[in-house]
Formats: sequence, C-alpha cells, structure tokens
Amino acid sequence: MSHNTFGHLFRVTTWGESHGPALGCVVDGCPPGLRFKLEDIQVWLDKRKPGQSRFVTQRREDDLVKVLSGVMLDEDGETMISTGTPISMLIENTDQRSKDYGEIARRYRPGHADYTYDVKYGIRDYRGGGRSSARETAARVAAGGIARLVVPGVTIRGALVQIGKHKINRANWDWAQVDQNPFFAPDPDIVPVWEEYLDGIRKAGSSIGAVVEVVAEGVPAGLGAPIYGKLDQDIASLLMSINAVKGVEIGEGFASAELTGEENADAMRMGNDGKRIFLSNHAGGILGGISTGEPVVARFAIKPTSSILTERQSIDADGNNVDVRTKGRHDPCVGIRAVPIGEAMVACAVADHYLRDRGQTGRQR
Amino acid sequence: MSHNTFGHLFRVTTWGESHGPALGCVVDGCPPGLRFKLEDIQVWLDKRKPGQSRFVTQRREDDLVKVLSGVMLDEDGETMISTGTPISMLIENTDQRSKDYGEIARRYRPGHADYTYDVKYGIRDYRGGGRSSARETAARVAAGGIARLVVPGVTIRGALVQIGKHKINRANWDWAQVDQNPFFAPDPDIVPVWEEYLDGIRKAGSSIGAVVEVVAEGVPAGLGAPIYGKLDQDIASLLMSINAVKGVEIGEGFASAELTGEENADAMRMGNDGKRIFLSNHAGGILGGISTGEPVVARFAIKPTSSILTERQSIDADGNNVDVRTKGRHDPCVGIRAVPIGEAMVACAVADHYLRDRGQTGRQR
Amino acid sequence: MSHNTFGHLFRVTTWGESHGPALGCVVDGCPPGLRFKLEDIQVWLDKRKPGQSRFVTQRREDDLVKVLSGVMLDEDGETMISTGTPISMLIENTDQRSKDYGEIARRYRPGHADYTYDVKYGIRDYRGGGRSSARETAARVAAGGIARLVVPGVTIRGALVQIGKHKINRANWDWAQVDQNPFFAPDPDIVPVWEEYLDGIRKAGSSIGAVVEVVAEGVPAGLGAPIYGKLDQDIASLLMSINAVKGVEIGEGFASAELTGEENADAMRMGNDGKRIFLSNHAGGILGGISTGEPVVARFAIKPTSSILTERQSIDADGNNVDVRTKGRHDPCVGIRAVPIGEAMVACAVADHYLRDRGQTGRQR
Amino acid sequence: MSHNTFGHLFRVTTWGESHGPALGCVVDGCPPGLRFKLEDIQVWLDKRKPGQSRFVTQRREDDLVKVLSGVMLDEDGETMISTGTPISMLIENTDQRSKDYGEIARRYRPGHADYTYDVKYGIRDYRGGGRSSARETAARVAAGGIARLVVPGVTIRGALVQIGKHKINRANWDWAQVDQNPFFAPDPDIVPVWEEYLDGIRKAGSSIGAVVEVVAEGVPAGLGAPIYGKLDQDIASLLMSINAVKGVEIGEGFASAELTGEENADAMRMGNDGKRIFLSNHAGGILGGISTGEPVVARFAIKPTSSILTERQSIDADGNNVDVRTKGRHDPCVGIRAVPIGEAMVACAVADHYLRDRGQTGRQR
Repeated sequence: MSHNTFGHLFRVTTWGESHGPALGCVVDGCPPGLRFKLEDIQVWLDKRKPGQSRFVTQRREDDLVKVLSGVMLDEDGETMISTGTPISMLIENTDQRSKDYGEIARRYRPGHADYTYDVKYGIRDYRGGGRSSARETAARVAAGGIARLVVPGVTIRGALVQIGKHKINRANWDWAQVDQNPFFAPDPDIVPVWEEYLDGIRKAGSSIGAVVEVVAEGVPAGLGAPIYGKLDQDIASLLMSINAVKGVEIGEGFASAELTGEENADAMRMGNDGKRIFLSNHAGGILGGISTGEPVVARFAIKPTSSILTERQSIDADGNNVDVRTKGRHDPCVGIRAVPIGEAMVACAVADHYLRDRGQTGRQR
Repeated sequence: MSHNTFGHLFRVTTWGESHGPALGCVVDGCPPGLRFKLEDIQVWLDKRKPGQSRFVTQRREDDLVKVLSGVMLDEDGETMISTGTPISMLIENTDQRSKDYGEIARRYRPGHADYTYDVKYGIRDYRGGGRSSARETAARVAAGGIARLVVPGVTIRGALVQIGKHKINRANWDWAQVDQNPFFAPDPDIVPVWEEYLDGIRKAGSSIGAVVEVVAEGVPAGLGAPIYGKLDQDIASLLMSINAVKGVEIGEGFASAELTGEENADAMRMGNDGKRIFLSNHAGGILGGISTGEPVVARFAIKPTSSILTERQSIDADGNNVDVRTKGRHDPCVGIRAVPIGEAMVACAVADHYLRDRGQTGRQR
Repeated sequence: MSHNTFGHLFRVTTWGESHGPALGCVVDGCPPGLRFKLEDIQVWLDKRKPGQSRFVTQRREDDLVKVLSGVMLDEDGETMISTGTPISMLIENTDQRSKDYGEIARRYRPGHADYTYDVKYGIRDYRGGGRSSARETAARVAAGGIARLVVPGVTIRGALVQIGKHKINRANWDWAQVDQNPFFAPDPDIVPVWEEYLDGIRKAGSSIGAVVEVVAEGVPAGLGAPIYGKLDQDIASLLMSINAVKGVEIGEGFASAELTGEENADAMRMGNDGKRIFLSNHAGGILGGISTGEPVVARFAIKPTSSILTERQSIDADGNNVDVRTKGRHDPCVGIRAVPIGEAMVACAVADHYLRDRGQTGRQR
Repeated sequence: MSHNTFGHLFRVTTWGESHGPALGCVVDGCPPGLRFKLEDIQVWLDKRKPGQSRFVTQRREDDLVKVLSGVMLDEDGETMISTGTPISMLIENTDQRSKDYGEIARRYRPGHADYTYDVKYGIRDYRGGGRSSARETAARVAAGGIARLVVPGVTIRGALVQIGKHKINRANWDWAQVDQNPFFAPDPDIVPVWEEYLDGIRKAGSSIGAVVEVVAEGVPAGLGAPIYGKLDQDIASLLMSINAVKGVEIGEGFASAELTGEENADAMRMGNDGKRIFLSNHAGGILGGISTGEPVVARFAIKPTSSILTERQSIDADGNNVDVRTKGRHDPCVGIRAVPIGEAMVACAVADHYLRDRGQTGRQR
C-alpha cells in the first residue's frame, strides 16, 4: 500500500536499517488460533542468515527473532497462540562495523540506491546502505514464517536455478537436495560447477547474478482477485520489491513468448476420483489472476551486487567526480540468500489472498 | 488496492464486461488544470482498437470514449480542463455477437479464466470472457491517456520486440518506425519476417506469444517509494495485471543473472553542464525503487491467446470430459495490441508516483 | 482510501458533478449471486429524490438509475444476478439550470465549499456546487441499495429526530410512521410542529439544521476490526463524509458524558433459548469496535444549508468584498433528504465489515 | 486502512497489548529532515502517563519511549534527524499485575470488549483488556509527537470541557490554565467543582463520562480531499477509534442542528493586509472537507469506563450467568487522559493531509 507496508488483509510493515539498534516487522491480520513455537519462525531466519558459507557475506548476525505482541503462551510456556492482534517481531543488529562505511557517506556507489535516496530525501543513512540494505529482508523472512502457518496444507519451497550462465538441469530436480548444499540447488550435479565458478568470482572481488524459483504447493483453487489484485500480480509485486530483483516470471514466463496456443494452454480432464485435473501447468497455477489448484510457480532474477572491489567511476554529493571501491563484507552472489526471501514473499501473497477469500479470521462459520 | 482499482494518489477503477452495454473507468486523483481534447485520449484507444489489420481480432468496435465528469469546457467549447475531481470515462460496446459464445457457457476453455472464475464465484459471465476479456484494457488505455498528461515533459512509448522466436535487431531500433507497420515494430527489417510468420499462425487457427518493451523518457529523478511501493514494483504489478502477461523485466531483467557487478552497475560522471550523468542504463532507470532520471525501461511477455481453432481436452461445469474449440474472432498474436496497454500501465505508475512525490494537486507552492 | 472511494472489500467509488451529463458509482467487491431487480435500487433513489414536497428543493430530477456492468440477467429478463465483478451505475442529470449559478462563478458563497475548493485546486466547477453538490449523494444511495443485499437478514432504517430545537418524543417512536409524512418522522405528533416551523423557515428564505438517526438491525455479532478499522469508526467516517454533517454519535453518544459506569455499561444474561442477551443497548450495538449483535444505532447532525436568500458578506476570487445571496432552488432543511443517505452509508459500512469477516465472496465453504 | 494502521501518506501502525513485554508503533511516511530530541516525544507520553493524580489509574508506568529506526543522530549525539524511512518506537510495559485479571479470563465484563473479541476471534488476551486496553493509546501519543513536527507552524492543543453534567464556562477559556490542574481544564473555576465531584465518583468505585475539545491552529488552507477523504471525516474516524469514544463533533457539531443558515454560515471579508478573513468559525475550520485556514475545532465524548467496583450481571464464555466486579486499578474518568490522545489523533490527521497535499517528502521543489 504505502511505502513500507504490503498486503490487504494479511498486512506486513517492516522497519529498520542496516546499522540501527534493531529491525523488525508488524504482521497485522494474522488470524487467531495459529499455534507455533519461536523456532518455527527462527528456522527461516537461520536459512537466510549471513556467514554460513564462503559464498555469502561474512557479516555475523545471530538474527534471533523476538515476538513482542499478538500471541498468548499456551500452558507449556513455549507454544504461542495467535490472538488475531498484530504480531510485532524484532531482530537486533549486533555486528555493525560502521567504520567500514564512513568514506562512502557522501560518495554514490554505482548500482546502489545511494544517489536516488539522496535525490529523493536529501539525506541518507549511508551506514551499510541504511534502509536499502538487504538486512531489511530479515524482517520479511520473519513475516513469511507467520504467513506459512495461515493456509492449511500449503508448502512453499524455493531453489536456486541459475548462477551466471550456469543453469541447473531440471531433469535432476530433487527438493531433498536443496538443503544439502550451500546454494539451495535442487540439482546435485550443478554444485561443483557453481563452487568452482563462485570461488573465482569471490577471489576476484567481483559478483554475479542469479535466478531463484519458488513453488507453492497446496494452494487451494479460487484465490485471487481480478482485475488489479491478481494473485500473480501480487506475487510479481512482492518479488520485484526484493532488493536487486530485476525480473519476475509466472509459469512459463518469458518462454511463453515462443509458444503457440496449443503448446501453452493446459488441457483438463476429470480424474477417476472426481477431481478436476490439469494435464500440464504452463500457467504456473494461475489463470485470470486466480489460483487453479496446481502448484504456483514463480521465478525471479537477481542482479549481481554492486558492492565489488574494483574501482568504479562515480560522483559524490558535492558534484565531484570520484572513484569508488566498495570495501566491507559482501555476497559474491546475493541470489543465494534470496531463496528464503522469495519463499517468504510468495507465502505472504498466498496468505493474504487466502484471507481475502475466506475472511479476516480465516475461520469457517 | 482492492480488486478493480489501482494506484495510490492517481487511482484508476475500471468496470465492464466484454458483452455488457459499456465499459469504462474512473480516474480519481487527476490533478486540476490539465488541458486536453477528447482526441488526445481517443488517439490511444484508436491505437489499441481491434480490426485494424489481419493480424488482430476482426471484432469491430469504434471504441469512442466519452468523458462524463471531472472537467470543465474551456471557452472554445472543446478543450477540457480537469478540476481535480474524478474523471469518469465510458466506452460503449457495439459489436457483441453473443451467439458465438453460447456453447461455452458451461465449458471451460483451456488456458482461459473460465474454470477459475467459476471456482471462485460460482457464476461467470461467459459471453466473450466477461470481465476477464481483453476488452477491459480499453478502459486502461483511456486512463493512460489522462496519466500521460500528469508529468510534464514525459514521453512514454512502446514497441513489440519479439513474436515467437523472432526477435528484432536492437541495432535497428527506430521509434519512427513503430507506427509505420501493423506490429508496432521498431525494426523495419523484422516486419516481413513477422508478416509471413503470423500469416501461417493465423491460417492454422493457432496463436503465438510475444514480448513488448515500454520506455518512459523524461521521468524526473526521485520518484518511487521504498520499500514496498517501489516504482519498478508498481510497474511490475501493473504489467502483470494485463491479461495473458506471464513475465516482467526492468532494465537488464533476466539477463542480469548472467552479468558481473562490473558489467551491470552503471557508472556516473559529472557532465560539463553540471548535470549528473549515468554512463549506461542497465538498471532501467530505477535504483532502490527510485527513479534515476534515466529512461525507465520495462518489458513484458504475453502468452499466446488460448482461443484457437484446434480442439482441446477440457471439462465442463458439470464434471464431464469435453472437447473445446474456440470459435469467435480472435487475435493470432494478442501481444500486438498489448503495446498501447503496456504504455498506459507505465504511464499510470509514473503519474501516481509523481503525485505521491509532489502532492495531490501536483502543484508547486 | 483515496479521495472518492470508500470501503475495504466492499468498495464504492463515486463520480460526477451537479451539472455534468451524469453522475454515478462503481461498486467493487459486491459478492456474486445476489439477485435483485432494478426497482430494488430505484426505490432508495426515489426516497432521496428532490421535489417531493414543499420542504425540499424544487429541482426536478427523475434520478433513474442504470446498471451497466457486474450482473447477468436471469431468464425472466428482469432479475439481475451479481457476478462478483464491479457494478457500475449511472444516473443522468436532467434538470440543470446552469444560468442560476453564473453569477457565483467567482464569488464565494459563505458556508459552502467554494473558497476551499478554489484554494486547493485553483479551479472550481461552480455550477450547482459542482462536485461538492449534494447531488453526489444519489450515487451513495444507489451503492447503498446494493449494500443492503449483502448481509442476509439485515434491516437498515433511518428517521429524522430533530429539526431546529424541535425534537421527536422517543416514546412515540413508530417505524411505520416514517414513510407516512414528508419528514421521515417516526413520531406522528411532531409532524404538524415541523410543518408549521419549516413553512416559516421556507418563506423567510432561510434554512435550519437537523438530526438523523439510523438503526441497523440483524447485524451479526463479530463484525469490526480493531483498532483502526472499528465498525463504529467506519460508520462515523462515512456519516461525516456526507455534505453538511458536523457531528456523529454511536449509541448514547454525547449523552454518555453524563452517565456513570453503572448507568452506561450494558449488562448481559443468558436467555432461555441459550442465546446471549444484552439487557440494554447504551453501546449502540458496538463494543471495542466490534458488533455485539444488538441493533447498531448511529445519529448525525446536519447543519442548515448555506444557500439562503439573505445577503451575506463575502469575498470573490479576485480579493474583493462582495455581498452574496444564493438564488436557485434549495432545501429549507437538507436534513430531511439526508435520511436515505445516512441509511446508505451505514449499509455500506456493515456490508464491508461483513465481507472482511466472511471473505470476498461472502460464501460459506 | 486495515485493522491496526491509519493514514494515507503519514501512516501509523500500532501494536502491543496491556500485559505483553512492550507496545509500540511504526510511523511510516515521516518526511525527511525533521529534527527532534527524544524529550520532544517523551513530553506527550508524560502528559498521558497514568498515576499522576488521584483522578487517574494508579498503575505505574514510566512509559519511556525508544526510537529504533528512521533517524540519524546529529553531531551533538542527541538530536535526531528523520531520514524518511519508518520510525519504529517502543515502550516497555513494566507494571503488569496479571494476577488482578485472572478471574475475568472467561467472564465478560459488561461494557468492555471481552464478549465481542471472543465472538470474533474465539480467543482473547484477557490480561488488562489485552489489545483493547487503553494502553494502546500510548503508541498513538508517540506517533502524534512525530506528527506535530510535520506541519510547520501548527499548534495542536486539547482541553477537558465537561465531566458528567459539569461543563466549563467557555468565557473563562485560558489555554495557560490547562497544564495547571490535573484535569487539563481551561477554566480555573471548574477545577474545584470537578475535584469534589470526582472524589465522590472515585470513592464510590464508580466512573463518569467526559467531553474533550481539540483545537489545531495554523493548519494551512487547502488541506483535505473530497469526497471520502475529507479532513473532518478523517479526524472523526480517528477520534472515534479511541477507546470509549461515542461521539465526535466538528465546529458547531450537534448544536448546528438548532441554527439557521444565517446563524451558521461564516461570512468573509478581505483584511487590511490582503488576507482572506472569516468573520466567525462555526464551521470549525473545515468546509467541504477542506481546511479554511481557521482553527480546526473537534470535540469528542468519552463514555465512563466500565471498570467499576459495583457487581454487574453478565455471562461467561461457557454460557453461565455470572456477576462481575472489576477489580484492578482504573480511571474514575478516562476522559482526562484522553486529552493528549485526542491531540495526537488530530495531529496525525493534519500531518497526513499536509503530505497528501504537498507530497511524500513535504518539500518544496
């Protein structure tokens, strides 16, 4: 809606900068009666957490989430039960090395939001990118942890499918592999390829782009809202809101430009059990903005981080030509850590549309 | 926001079905004092109008727009001046052949929204796709005509860049060519290729996908709203809301997955005239969700229409297996007519962010 | 939300000026499957229609409503069935005497919105008040006609309870009387008092304020949304949005300032039938922003119209002192025609909260 | 908008319960470059803080506000400068005596939101009223502290004008008196009357209602947004959202029902300095939903708290008749502490409309 909030009935507001005392979110519209433990949220933050392999930033953050409101404790003193009121979550920033960033206070790092924030606001929290830092996505992942609980039976999983020119072999897709390697790769054969390639990128102080795919299974048919609140539209909007994302696809995506109507449209048949069956899923689970009951499939492209060790031409806030080299700790491929973020965004969009369809409290009456 | 409205300060609500008496839109938030003639809006509708070549649907609609509110006539009796109140526009449906659609009242056309509307609403206006018909986009184009007037000095142009596997040669790009061929192609060399290819598609009763590119020049730096109201996010959302769109890109888009940080980040320099200059525009005119002042570049992929003459397997509302062949008049490549629609969506997003930045009335004080 | 739209899931956008070709509204979010005839909407417009007695404006408008979208006709060719898509309704302006208003094009009528519209927009449709004319409320009443159909079993009725210092005797309250007199008075004893009083006002070319009360019975318990989407808050917001309204009350309203906790809080008991019973309804059917199941009771005060025959001191757009006398046809007591408008606003608020609670389609699953 | 957020460009989201670890708010849309110290916010919380006289609840809360994001510290290490990103503020709950509330876990206190929350959500944080507790208003007051900074030159002040039947003498109105007595009374003569009266109420374990008036001076002409985003409508909405408020007035309010057009409409004249002058302010500073430049005047009625020592008839969650007596620490007149809350709500509404009118950053360009 406005700047730092998204969603219609399941609404998430995030706040916080890279180098302030904390960041967090308020999840408003969570239906009552959901039961979860803190670890059910923490697990997703751990997945996104920096410093877990040599392929991601070496910043060390525990990213421990606190729940400040919106729940009551069950008798076990551990299980939280949502009450339907806003759930406020907070994550402290612990490893802030502000000194790393001092010299870019007035210099615009090419490819970053430094220049545009200054143009718009006339002031900018330059420490670690401030509000435009990817640290903001920790709050998204926490919110996504709640969102996953809203729709009964839904499973939302993501995987990295491309780094640079190196794409996975989709024939090898195995969800069980995703957590077995530092890339969230569903194809074990690509892992050594990416390792070698990214080691080269990392040692060169460079960076590279990537593509993430998110699949939501168990989304009931009928979610979505024509014409300007389509489920795919809201997914596209949220994925595009992630830092560094430059493209979004649903189902066949850009490949559909090369398909004929015969190839693209998914035929239907009645199943033996009386269920309606789609014989393929080129649509990515959404037709006319409304879910079909098939898996919802979304992909997004992440540009290479602009924080690189090579000197680049730029200007400063005073209108001088300068050369900027970004020191500090950075991800050679930010796309890796974007996997749980993409999952969180799809989870939030699905939860929101579920509640729009079923009502605020998500209850049958 | 809700189902049939988009925008935050420049808000557009569309209404109407393919085969009702009329369709239209209400443009709320148009700043006061804009001067235009009816033909300034009509020109865009004419561009989108069906029946203009053998490559688009042969449905005949005049698509004459009426302005019912929100303006006062100047003394010439012709120039309208916006007053800041909602501008209601109406387009009558004239060529409705409902009989063409009777037999699909209860059959689900594969690839169309028939099944999902029925699942969600339990009732569906089957005539010509009802609300999910591309006729709804006429209202978008009318709203876009107003939006184009909001930001002084902005130019928003679109072009078709791909049909099936046939892409334009970007080296040939010439905006002057776009209106010289029935495809809105910016590359004259591709025209005969597409003509031959689409003739084949058309004669086979088939259809094919396409890619459209929209470029907005003159967008002032500083438009956008972090974190969940980014300019690129809102453009992605609106482009994805267009019927049959399955993918959206900003700037390098999915190609950025294959770029390194050095290749992708746009360097800056001070110009001789004291202006800030970007040495390239991989970002597509947006960094951190905020416009840079460079051209805003967006692309979107349109799937082939699912209305084809080949029989397809499907089911009906009663749970029977059926075979469906879509008669009626259709576009072999709906991507062609999507060009002015994409322009309109980008125009609306830019106008909305201009007003968010400058205020409701868009006036300096 | 924005300027000319209200509601969250049941959203109404109105458009049109006093002296344009037409006015109307788009009702977005109407659940599918509602069945109604045109006369079910027209009846409320007839109730609001001008020219029905000597106590209201003599402007003659048929106020015939047309439904342009969002419905399919049932086999009887007359019953409309909502499809869940936006319902666009249009009312033509027929009796526009623009000449009556010419001389106030640049003069600010005291008590009207002339000055403030000019300050804000720098341009103003002066004909009949333009957008700020009470004619806009015809669109509200049409929308309210749809809203009344949304919540099964709800009855929403209004009455005039005060004109000037003359209040009804609440002991005489009889809903059956409301349609038996030109004032929507529920107390037959007040009718001759008001007739005589208003005749004096009318002959003097003066005007007088009034108070309207609206009661919604059959509102299910549990509608509302803490903290900033309370049912009473949304009712207050919509009633205050009606032209000339200066005060709003729920339940005891301002009288609650003089009550003790013992007097004000409504006790409860279990009924013999196992139902929860409130022993009184000082709360006006809403506690903590959520409906109790008791009748929702709202009142609002309407100021006297500022269109009077007495000359008043004012200024013009050029900064000159002028004296203004409002000619034209006006209501001696605009409060009378506010009764169906207030009903419509309460109906819309209740419908919106019903859908928020039950979901977009308002269906059980 | 949704449940726990209000505002359009200046957006406030509050969270937290009476007896959780903390409560707070996120202020989204605060323009950049505002300078303030923590004490500039704390001063308003101190004004609302409980335990300051025998006439308000004896709960002891320090209500110390922390600012977690959205600002940078100036070189003095103390002055905060807003950056345009969300300002998250947090207030810890320190004096929570949950044991006081145990026995009402399943009993519905008459006049409170216990029953309606249970009906809606099926679960309720019974400790101290949970989310429906007036402690939520501390977050509003913090947000109001930011809002007051947004509009240059605006002054927003409130006063208590009625307790029970005892009204102030408006001829004695003296803003300087407001902070000199425990009632925020602008009339020194009423203070001993209220003291004696409230002592009686307090000793009887009873409670009484009140009326608060808020005046905003220095609101520039031209703020507001017809038709459904009127300034008075938004003020009414926010005032009605305060716990226990049952009525809202603008300007003459309900008294306008007894006025004639001659008495009510404010005449205008050109001043000697070329300024436009209103000769009276019956309108309360708003015409047609848009500010006139005159002081904005709003009043609201607060019902007596339902927490009283007298036993009342009620039911419990299991459907039994019970008698409920509310122990714990409560306000004999909650209207007193509503004064700074009302000020905060008006401040937020004015700030929001200022930014709608001037744009997100509130800057001239």
